Amino acid sequence: MEKAYQKLEKKFEDLAALSHAMGILGWDEQTMMPEKSGDERAFALSKLASFSHRVLTDPMVGDLIAEALEDQKELDTWQEANLKAISRNYEKAKALPSDFVEKKRLATMKAQQAWRKCRVENDWKSFLPYFEENIKLTQEEAQRRADGKEISMYDALVDLYEPGLTASDIDALFDPLEKELPDLIFQAEEKSQMKLKNIIRPNPPFSIQSQEELGREVMRDLCYDFSRGRLDVAFHPFCGGARGDVRITTRYREDDFQESLMGVIHETGHAQYEQNLPKAWGHQPVGSSTGMAIHESQSLFFEMQIGRSREFLAFMAPKLKKTFSHVGADVWSLENLVPLYQEVKRDFIRVNADEVTYPAHVIMRYHMEKSLLNGELLARDLPEMWNEQMKKWLGLETLGNDKNGCMQDVHWPSGAIGYFPTYTVGAIIAAQLCQSYKRDCKNWSEMWAKGEFETVRAWLKEKIWSNGSRFDMKELAVSATGRELGISDYLNHLKERYL
Amino acid sequence: MEKAYQKLEKKFEDLAALSHAMGILGWDEQTMMPEKSGDERAFALSKLASFSHRVLTDPMVGDLIAEALEDQKELDTWQEANLKAISRNYEKAKALPSDFVEKKRLATMKAQQAWRKCRVENDWKSFLPYFEENIKLTQEEAQRRADGKEISMYDALVDLYEPGLTASDIDALFDPLEKELPDLIFQAEEKSQMKLKNIIRPNPPFSIQSQEELGREVMRDLCYDFSRGRLDVAFHPFCGGARGDVRITTRYREDDFQESLMGVIHETGHAQYEQNLPKAWGHQPVGSSTGMAIHESQSLFFEMQIGRSREFLAFMAPKLKKTFSHVGADVWSLENLVPLYQEVKRDFIRVNADEVTYPAHVIMRYHMEKSLLNGELLARDLPEMWNEQMKKWLGLETLGNDKNGCMQDVHWPSGAIGYFPTYTVGAIIAAQLCQSYKRDCKNWSEMWAKGEFETVRAWLKEKIWSNGSRFDMKELAVSATGRELGISDYLNHLKERYL
Repeated sequence: MEKAYQKLEKKFEDLAALSHAMGILGWDEQTMMPEKSGDERAFALSKLASFSHRVLTDPMVGDLIAEALEDQKELDTWQEANLKAISRNYEKAKALPSDFVEKKRLATMKAQQAWRKCRVENDWKSFLPYFEENIKLTQEEAQRRADGKEISMYDALVDLYEPGLTASDIDALFDPLEKELPDLIFQAEEKSQMKLKNIIRPNPPFSIQSQEELGREVMRDLCYDFSRGRLDVAFHPFCGGARGDVRITTRYREDDFQESLMGVIHETGHAQYEQNLPKAWGHQPVGSSTGMAIHESQSLFFEMQIGRSREFLAFMAPKLKKTFSHVGADVWSLENLVPLYQEVKRDFIRVNADEVTYPAHVIMRYHMEKSLLNGELLARDLPEMWNEQMKKWLGLETLGNDKNGCMQDVHWPSGAIGYFPTYTVGAIIAAQLCQSYKRDCKNWSEMWAKGEFETVRAWLKEKIWSNGSRFDMKELAVSATGRELGISDYLNHLKERYL
Repeated sequence: MEKAYQKLEKKFEDLAALSHAMGILGWDEQTMMPEKSGDERAFALSKLASFSHRVLTDPMVGDLIAEALEDQKELDTWQEANLKAISRNYEKAKALPSDFVEKKRLATMKAQQAWRKCRVENDWKSFLPYFEENIKLTQEEAQRRADGKEISMYDALVDLYEPGLTASDIDALFDPLEKELPDLIFQAEEKSQMKLKNIIRPNPPFSIQSQEELGREVMRDLCYDFSRGRLDVAFHPFCGGARGDVRITTRYREDDFQESLMGVIHETGHAQYEQNLPKAWGHQPVGSSTGMAIHESQSLFFEMQIGRSREFLAFMAPKLKKTFSHVGADVWSLENLVPLYQEVKRDFIRVNADEVTYPAHVIMRYHMEKSLLNGELLARDLPEMWNEQMKKWLGLETLGNDKNGCMQDVHWPSGAIGYFPTYTVGAIIAAQLCQSYKRDCKNWSEMWAKGEFETVRAWLKEKIWSNGSRFDMKELAVSATGRELGISDYLNHLKERYL
């Protein structure tokens, strides 16, 4: 007779098929779907999600987990880790009753629709009621998730995005960073703007076809597997699709090729992680990625550690010269390229921020979302608080400019509180990983300059990708780098590159 | 409290979401999917299918149907028809145990893979064992489906493709057709080939981009709604996607634009049916199309009744002239175009056959598949029988040429016996519908020549599309045309156009 554990694996194969479907439908929605088919797609996706929730929270799953735990000694280490992941997924799903899930999904869908409209119109007032409802429901969600678990409400939410990560872990990283950051930003910006005075900027237009060809070429250089993936255009760049079919998107501007190219490199990092997860566990929870901080560390390893390095730019220079042959050759000299790719400039928008100012955007959001969640900061007071924080961190005023202030991000309107820190935690992990990689692979510098990334791939595959979610983020940092996660490599990296 | 009927509607909404997912995944597989992602897609699709089967055959569904039938007097006519369709779907799904479904799916998947390879290599011998296994399983399926229902095994299969259609209905149409057809083919071919002697054929190449633009333009002329659909490229032209998102495909050849263009018009007919099904019933069985014969009647209405008519060609001539401006203007005169578009020529391949020889291809398959099913014809004797039938119907020999003979179609390798007759039944319905339409809309001829198809759309929407599957094919023919389905309009159409 089949054991409880094997029965659980079968259940999770059904869930994997549903998740495959939702992944491809989600990708299609952003890339291929005709303009008026959105309602039907929303219907199908929400049904599939609640379907998935029902399969997962079937009381039988709970019984099987209990039974499997009793026979745990018969499992090998991967099976044991899988059972742990199964149990984690089950507990998370069970924490919310399905009518609440439905209610929150509806509210966040409405809030997002309102946000899209109000943001364009810089209309905070009309957005506020939706936002208030959203915060209220997110507080209720956090309460339910934290209930009986002796963890804080905020930790219960962060755990959704990076299992095991807590506010005290984040504080241990962000507190020392906050001390150094203001000075670092000031100096790095001054230095960067000084260098840029003597720089020649390449003249547009940059044809979309050339950009696309170059993007594909660089993806191949970075070992992306096109036989199991695609590159397409979408309004928001993302990495999506399904297991064994990992697709990325970008968007093109004829007046700027850097945004698309760096976006492609970033998403290639996400995609490599997904493409190289352990095949044998492809339909089980342990075969999936760990969480969003680790995920972001992979995209930032590719975009920031590799993509903006002097070595990589040396490799790219001839490609750029060949692709954009209408631009004068002196633009593509390394002395010209490096300052362009390493520009630091304080600005309003997080997604466009450079490597040095980015953590400031994240840290201020981190503090504000904690206060929003525990009620110390009221939704209606957000614009003022935003302005205050932006002045403090970046010396910029946002009062009356909410579209470029507190309304710029999709996260809170989608009910995602606890997500923002994963961006900077990801950057910190990327720096520590890269430091270890460079120690392990002494001739990294020549190899990058020649465009040979097989060793990067092999190193990350061994240390991160092939582990699936067998270890949590903190364990993974230790096993990959031999040290607890800290900010010293990150700070060194920033200082070395920008000061 | 919710009534049984309402509970059934909810169940079928879940099934509609699964079917949406399978529709888009299927479309993606043929148009977008990377080459090596097929295994994962097959995994997901087969899981979703058996998921769907489990939801549908849940014994609770049977209980709810019984309960709803008791309260049937409380239902309006649409709900009543929906309950009938629900019950029909349930009975069909229940007829096969899920392990048999699994077994047959596996066998047909293997047979199709073998078929693809063996067909290219003209290797009947290697294909035969797969084919024999396939026939055996299809016989078992038919047996199970007919069991306890006092219908023949063949009827049980035909009913899967066009509910309510039986072999005796088909015989009533095909028997008189068989008498007239040989003579009709002979005369039509002679006449057509005579006319073609003085015809100028347009010179290739026909650029793919021009063909695509023309295809889109004609789709719009024929009232296809691009805000809820797409046109893409696939190896096999098809109409797919999901409710509210009906997508068609075509393929292009630079040496021939007619194949793609007529294919696009054909698929536009299928798509119009799907795009105009009753919106209010979009997630219920009664809101779906009736069956494949009615479906084919819509595509053939567009392709054959409209698309190859003298009037439509008059409308197309200036578009063709403009699109393919490298071709001499005299090619696009109506006297030159009509014989080109109405060519009759006996040939081996069904999918490339003209309107007059097509029914011969179908009729011979109809007789052979009935014999295969009841065991009178053994799988291993098929090539000989095929040769005999081809000689009889079209005067062509196929011995040793099985790739262009009995191995040309995907239907039998996919385990679909009972499908072929729907093509010609569809052509017969299309002719009878068109005759009625022309009677109702006296100035059709001028309107078609001007490219005004709004009245065609309105007429078909009222008579066919808006009914979903409220009526079966035979009822629909009567309600739309005021007469039982017969072949007189079809024969008149063929004689008028080709003799």
